[in-house]
Order: sequence, then structure tokens, then C-alpha cells
Amino acid sequence: MLVVDALEYHAWNRGIFEDIKAGGIDCVNATCCIWENAREALDNIAMWQRLYEEHADLIAPARSVADIYAAKAAGRASMVLGFQSASPYEHDIGLVGVFAALGVKIVQLTYNGQNHVGASCYEEVDPGLSWFGREVVAEMNKHRVLIDLSHVGERTSFDSIERSGVPVAITHANPKFAKEARRNKSDALIKALAARGGVIGVAVESGMLPGGARTTITEFCDMVAKLVEMVGVEHVGIGSDHNLDHSHEARRWWLVGKWTRNVPGFVDLVPTGWEGEELGFPEWITKPSGVANIIDGLRARGFTEAEVEAIAGGNWLRIFKEAWGE
Amino acid sequence: MLVVDALEYHAWNRGIFEDIKAGGIDCVNATCCIWENAREALDNIAMWQRLYEEHADLIAPARSVADIYAAKAAGRASMVLGFQSASPYEHDIGLVGVFAALGVKIVQLTYNGQNHVGASCYEEVDPGLSWFGREVVAEMNKHRVLIDLSHVGERTSFDSIERSGVPVAITHANPKFAKEARRNKSDALIKALAARGGVIGVAVESGMLPGGARTTITEFCDMVAKLVEMVGVEHVGIGSDHNLDHSHEARRWWLVGKWTRNVPGFVDLVPTGWEGEELGFPEWITKPSGVANIIDGLRARGFTEAEVEAIAGGNWLRIFKEAWGE
Repeated sequence: MLVVDALEYHAWNRGIFEDIKAGGIDCVNATCCIWENAREALDNIAMWQRLYEEHADLIAPARSVADIYAAKAAGRASMVLGFQSASPYEHDIGLVGVFAALGVKIVQLTYNGQNHVGASCYEEVDPGLSWFGREVVAEMNKHRVLIDLSHVGERTSFDSIERSGVPVAITHANPKFAKEARRNKSDALIKALAARGGVIGVAVESGMLPGGARTTITEFCDMVAKLVEMVGVEHVGIGSDHNLDHSHEARRWWLVGKWTRNVPGFVDLVPTGWEGEELGFPEWITKPSGVANIIDGLRARGFTEAEVEAIAGGNWLRIFKEAWGE
Repeated sequence: MLVVDALEYHAWNRGIFEDIKAGGIDCVNATCCIWENAREALDNIAMWQRLYEEHADLIAPARSVADIYAAKAAGRASMVLGFQSASPYEHDIGLVGVFAALGVKIVQLTYNGQNHVGASCYEEVDPGLSWFGREVVAEMNKHRVLIDLSHVGERTSFDSIERSGVPVAITHANPKFAKEARRNKSDALIKALAARGGVIGVAVESGMLPGGARTTITEFCDMVAKLVEMVGVEHVGIGSDHNLDHSHEARRWWLVGKWTRNVPGFVDLVPTGWEGEELGFPEWITKPSGVANIIDGLRARGFTEAEVEAIAGGNWLRIFKEAWGE
């Protein structure tokens, strides 16, 4: 079994890499940008180059499925760099290839606000992909970057699924049938994603869970089972959305970036409990290593070993191959 | 009479400043950014600081109506720096005040593509102002920057008119009743703008004119007369959209920036003739100094001297005062 966590965004440090290893996670989509522009993205990539050097006993970079297997064989967890918005592409189609060459292989089209590409799930109106957005989808296909729709608005998401020449991902979100939250996804969208070969990664951030941070592992696995029933086991993965060791200021920055000073304004944007009294993670996954509890839970729920392997990482490996090539 | 040209965007040089002076133009909204980001905007502002030094006998900076009058009294044409998109604000509400402090007093919310704020008139779907866009409108009011809607999509424009606490401008566009072009404005939008005290500047770029580059001064003044009849003389000004001395590559860059490499793709975006065989200006205004011919034409069309003064600059001075304060 090869275990993939399709979204983590920590204030990265050695303790986290140790926890990832301890939990048996073999590969992580490691967010290296949220709202950053191109210049700021370079700084973050430079930080990752340093992290790879400093923690070479624990982690290794990956930009192909072969890299992921090689890292596992060498006893290391592989990190695939990802952006949680297309903001480092700015308004420049040439930057898609530039960041692909730097190893950024998974890019969410928008984070929590409208950008040049399309709309976030938090905007009141989603116009779908802009002209530039259509170019970005084609360019990401060309440079073999996996498209991620987790925070993306619904119409922009449908457009992206339809226009992409390869399957696309929702790396970290749950179905709205489990919890009505802006970040969660409608049945129609998940079905459209799956119909084109896509994968959705179930997440454990409390605001997206049916019972918030009090959601049990049984309830979580029931949600997974219902999702599997709806679209098939080959379209479901894990994307914990785990985030550790950030300061309060850093959390505020990810939520609203620099686009507003008016915190009361953004409160309207987020579902109750997404950031607030419910913030946090269930007790069975207070750290990324809790992914092991999901795997045990899936077994306990009656999934076969082949099904567990598909959900734990096999489906991600398949879509990575389709998106990135061999 | 004080003459204002509410939009020019040249490859600025001494010959152009001489022509502006020769044409009796006292004040120009001088575009200093089109698609640039914050860092690039600083370079362009630095260029303007140099231009002010090198051509101090011809031009002077203005960021208030008092500056405009003082420059005229000193025999100089004043330049009000403007952005043709909010791109230098990036996704950062703090940059509105930063660029206001640098003298950028007129900002068009979008240029030819969707951005963080709203939609361009060229997008297929306009969702209106984003959450950030609403913040930008309020912040521009606070920092006393005039909002310009010339290239902005219709729904984003209606939202901006409604949300701005002071009148807003369309610095350079014509009514769609004169020429059905994406850049031109519907009767409903012009009426909404005027009802809140706004001003629209009539433009002479061929793609926006009823007869293209062959439009006569009489036809042009007929369009102005019909516009005045529709919304009143106090809501009409001149914004030539004149642009000289740019290379072919520079023109291509303004049209599509860096957002696409696929020129056939953008051709679908622009009304036939906007950039193409019809590119250019009528023979009565091949340079900015042709604004003097508009003023003569308005007199010949039967406008009173007070009306001519209002259209030639008085209306812009009024809205500048309302937007910028005294």
C-alpha cells in the first residue's frame, strides 16, 4: 500500500515530517502558496529546497509517480509542491510552465476569492472560467499540472472539468450531503468529476465534517461509504487539509489574505464554524498521522483491502499519472 | 476655458507633450499602467518622475484641481496619473492608499480581462463586483481616487455606480447607440452613471466611432448632441483615448497582456475593426491636439459657450473635485 495525503498545509518543520512518516504517509501534496504572487512563490520554493536539504533523511521532492515510488523505496515521504490558488501565475500564461519546471504539479485554480481565472466557492456569483481561465486550463494540461477544484466555485468547476483534457481533482473537500458548507461539493459536481475520471479527497477540517470536530471515525467512514456508493471506489481518496503550527496571524492571512482589513466583512463569507469555535480536527486525527486511523476505519467499515488501497493512495497515483504523464 | 482630455496613453515623449500644449489641452489623465503589477507600477511612476523633470517647461504633475489650475497659470499641461486596470493593486487592499499617495488618482477597475475586482466588457459573463471589488470601491472612495468604468463589464459597472459614495467616470467610451461595440456603453448604464453625477468622456478611437476612422467631425458632434440630449450637458466630457508612438509589440501587449499566446483566441474578444484594418483615428484628430477640432465642432453644432466649456473640461473639474475633495 502506498498512502497519499492530497492536501496538507503546515508551518512546515521537522516535527511534522516525523509525524507524516510515523503515520505511514508516503506522499503529500504540500501547499507551498496560498495567496502569494509569482515573486513570493519563488521565496517559498527556495524554502522547500532548503527543507529538502535539511530533512533529507525524512522527505524527498516528487514531480512524477516514479519519484513517489523511489522516495518510498528509500524510506522517505515524498512532497509534491502545490499552490492553493493560481495567484503565482498572476495574469501571465507563461508562468504555468515556469512553475511546472520548478516542480509545482498540483494547482487549485482559485482560493477564497475571485481571481483572473475564475470564482471561489465564497463569491456570491460565479461566472465560470474567464478567457484567461480557459487558457490556464489548457496550459496546465500542456505542462502536465494537475488541476485542483477544492475551493473553486461550482460553475468554474464544471467549466474546468469539461475543458480539461485529463481528469481533474478535488484534493480536499467533502460532499454537501454530509455537511452543507460552501467548501463542500454538490452531488452533481462530484458525479461530473468522477464521470471524467477525477478523484475527490475527503477532508477532516471540522467545518467540512458532518459533526464538526466531534465527528467520529465511524461517521466519517459512513460518509466515505456513501460517496463510494455514489461514484465508485476509484474516485475517492484522502486529502486531510491538515494544518499545524501556524500562528493566529498566519491563519487569518490564509483566510482573507490582504484583500480586506474588515474582519466582520469576511465572516459573512465563511460557513459558521469553519473558522471559529469549531476550528480544529477530530481527536482521531489531531495530526497528519491520524490518516492511519482513517485507513483502519475503512477496514472496520468493511472495505476490502483492494478498496482501502485505492482510497488510501492508489486512486491518487492513477490520476497523478494521467495528469503528469509517466 | 480649461480643457481636459480624460484619457491618453502614449509611448510618452517630448513631441507628445508639445502637441498637447499646441492643442490647448490643459490637463490629461495620463495612463501609467495597463496590466502591470505593483512592482512594475513603481517603475512606471519612477519614469513619470523623470518625465516631469525633463519636460518641466511643458508639463507638471497634478493630484488636485488646485494643481490643475496652478499648472495652467504657469503655462504647463498637468498630468493626472491613472491606471487602466486595478492590476497594480494586486489582491491587496492596502495598495489603494499606497498608489493614491503616489498620485494615482484615476483607476479603471478592470482592463480587457477579469481580475480580482470584477469583469471586463470582453468577458462572456460578468458576475459584478467580487467581495474584494466591493472593498476596492470603498477604499478608493476613502483615498479619494476617481473610479473609471471604461473597459469594465456592465454588471460590474452598475454595481460600482451603486456602491460608490461619490460620482464615478467613464473616461473614454461612446454610447452603443452610436456604435455597437463591446467597449461602448448602453443607454441604461450611461443614464445610471449620470443619475449619480457621473461623467462619460467621448472617445475617438476608430472602433468605438459610428463610421470608424472615416467618421466626420459633424457625425462625431451629432453623437455628442444626442448624448447631451439623453443625459444633460453636465455629464459629458472628452476622453480621446489617443495613443501614439507605440510599437506593434506594445499594442499587442496592451490588447492581450501576457494572458494568452494564442492571438486567434483574442480576436474573438474584440469587436471587428477595434484592432485591425480600421485601427487609427479620424483625420481631424490624428494627434491629441485634434481635441481643438472637437471644441470648434461643438461650437459649430450650436452648443453655447457655457456648454462647450462644460464638455471641454468643466464637467471633469467638477467630478475631480467630488472624487478627490478640494
